[in-house]
Amino acid sequence: MLVFGIDPGLTRCGVGLVRGSPGRAEFVDAGVIRTPTDLPVARRLLLLETALEDWLEKTQPEAVAVEQVFAQHNLMTVVGVAQAAGVALLVAARHGLPVASYTPSAVKAAITGSGRADKAQVGTMVCRVLRLEAAPRPADAADAVALAICHLWRGGAEARLAAAAPAVRPASWGRVVAQSKAGR
Amino acid sequence: MLVFGIDPGLTRCGVGLVRGSPGRAEFVDAGVIRTPTDLPVARRLLLLETALEDWLEKTQPEAVAVEQVFAQHNLMTVVGVAQAAGVALLVAARHGLPVASYTPSAVKAAITGSGRADKAQVGTMVCRVLRLEAAPRPADAADAVALAICHLWRGGAEARLAAAAPAVRPASWGRVVAQSKAGR
Repeated sequence: MLVFGIDPGLTRCGVGLVRGSPGRAEFVDAGVIRTPTDLPVARRLLLLETALEDWLEKTQPEAVAVEQVFAQHNLMTVVGVAQAAGVALLVAARHGLPVASYTPSAVKAAITGSGRADKAQVGTMVCRVLRLEAAPRPADAADAVALAICHLWRGGAEARLAAAAPAVRPASWGRVVAQSKAGR
Repeated sequence: MLVFGIDPGLTRCGVGLVRGSPGRAEFVDAGVIRTPTDLPVARRLLLLETALEDWLEKTQPEAVAVEQVFAQHNLMTVVGVAQAAGVALLVAARHGLPVASYTPSAVKAAITGSGRADKAQVGTMVCRVLRLEAAPRPADAADAVALAICHLWRGGAEARLAAAAPAVRPASWGRVVAQSKAGR
């Protein structure tokens, strides 16, 4: 299974591709999508969407893993990160891909055995698991790779079940009610 | 100018259309987009995007006004609201529409003269401005209509300037760097 990990952000959005199965993982690619800080947020979200679409088109992953956004953390940046994560989830859903979200501590625990492991320990284990001499850079790319590994270790079974479900189109994903009320 | 107001949310996203110019406003339409709470967030965002696209296609507004999300408020729901707002901004940018964001107190101040006005006062003034016997319902639709009026009152000039700027495509909206690093 090819897993596409996304560490969402507007200024830097890490992406990482890992192929494998629980207990076995191979590094495929990683990178960072950047959008200019001087553009309006709406345009930055559109640039992010376009770049994520390009990655999905080129790499054709079978599952997507996105870092979960917590309201408790980084109050100053949580809105931008949540919006970037929303675009990542949207693009994955549009491609009909199963999506899983993991907290940073879940990723650390999956890779090192401890949810409180530091960055260096996670980096060391990512290198060991993927048989790399150095962790992917920059840090956002490495975090996205770690997310993809976490999904292989933890989420593989659920993702395969979801992928085996019949493909559905937006129209059949439940009811959307767009009520029109003139209020008079 | 036809303004499309959006009060973002995953469970209920208010939309409201108002036509006019600073000091003059006419009610056009309002409604609520709902997505089922039992679906994964990724699918709900896709349903929201599809419904917002439908509204924009049908109504062809010239500007979009979205309620600004604050990290300080509603910590439990801020992530979902931010993701819904992100989809609203994304859809507006995709249509090349000028987008403005207003805080709830800016909307209240634009419509009633006080940023601390209560819901009833805002509703009364929305009815008076639009010459309606009752405010649009439900509350999310009324809030979206108030956003659109606020944009007419406050943002009209900037929006017209932005609309007069040459149309741009995503590719020309600045640099996107998708670095590929093998890390070895």
